[in-house]
Amino acid sequence: MALLPEPVQNLITAFERLPGIGPKSASRLTFYLLRAPDEASQLLAEALLHLKSATGQCQVCFNITLANQPVCEICANDRRDEGVICVVEEPLDVLALERTSGFYGKYHVLHGVLSPIEGVGPEDLKIAPLVERVKSGRVTEVIIATNPSMEGDATALYLRQQLTPLGVRITRLARGLPVGGDLEYADQNTLLRALSGRQEMT
Amino acid sequence: MALLPEPVQNLITAFERLPGIGPKSASRLTFYLLRAPDEASQLLAEALLHLKSATGQCQVCFNITLANQPVCEICANDRRDEGVICVVEEPLDVLALERTSGFYGKYHVLHGVLSPIEGVGPEDLKIAPLVERVKSGRVTEVIIATNPSMEGDATALYLRQQLTPLGVRITRLARGLPVGGDLEYADQNTLLRALSGRQEMT
Repeated sequence: MALLPEPVQNLITAFERLPGIGPKSASRLTFYLLRAPDEASQLLAEALLHLKSATGQCQVCFNITLANQPVCEICANDRRDEGVICVVEEPLDVLALERTSGFYGKYHVLHGVLSPIEGVGPEDLKIAPLVERVKSGRVTEVIIATNPSMEGDATALYLRQQLTPLGVRITRLARGLPVGGDLEYADQNTLLRALSGRQEMT
Repeated sequence: MALLPEPVQNLITAFERLPGIGPKSASRLTFYLLRAPDEASQLLAEALLHLKSATGQCQVCFNITLANQPVCEICANDRRDEGVICVVEEPLDVLALERTSGFYGKYHVLHGVLSPIEGVGPEDLKIAPLVERVKSGRVTEVIIATNPSMEGDATALYLRQQLTPLGVRITRLARGLPVGGDLEYADQNTLLRALSGRQEMT
């Protein structure tokens, strides 16, 4: 005997497929929606259905954009410095950097990192269009802002190889102690990086 | 300037409204779905749209059931003891008890607990139909399985008042140390309950 009616089980299963949502959270969400007004499920369903059909990728930087907008707002913004390109793994990283209000250049979204284990090679990422962008334009600096992980570092090294012949300045985001962090709890690698990257107090 | 295209922001907002999903999880889920095949969002959307339209409440116990099924499978099951009713707060509690395979009676789902702070009174819960059920039937015992919380206890007390005149046995789920728990880490109240509810070793 099925313990739950099929429509309820279906939604639990659909929630469970999402990353970070386990069986318990999936049933809690489902039973929450069962009790909530109909609009709650409807709003979510409509947002889901529009997600893919109404969005696309920017033709220049491959950030997410509206489907009817070939170029994203950042790329279309004349007041941002075309000379500096910040290369990130995912669209979410653009968001994180934009929230700092500390970067006025343009972005380039790779949509992943090199990962031989998962079979992701350079041709699966937006690397060729980046090289084209640097070749064709007035780019003076490429900031490689892939994650400070194994794959992120490997991807950064690969990008450096590809971009060095083009004669642009290539930089990588600084590593060290996180602001508000505690030296005592920092891991060895972070501490080593903080030491080797130490800066003059001026 | 909006940092994210509207369809993306809409889905993040819709996810954020769900309990236990904060802004970070909401964007992670949204960007996961952006990268995932279209079916992932579609499956979830369809499950959401069917949730309410395809389900209803059992006319007897108020558990969740299919829309075209007036009585749930447990209530319709002749081999389950009609004489014992286990009263729970939510349909999820039925599921938890069914998983134990240790209860062969029927259920009654209150759909909430008494909570003066949130303005939930007896008339907002399925208490009147429970009294009717006990009055009309061959019920010999009512097990009150509301949560061992303030509201759950208050609701249990109220139910006892309502049911005592009907001359049925009224029981409450045992409280004490959880199986696999550690005496050292048990809170004072649980330990007090475990002491006062101690049982003969036979």
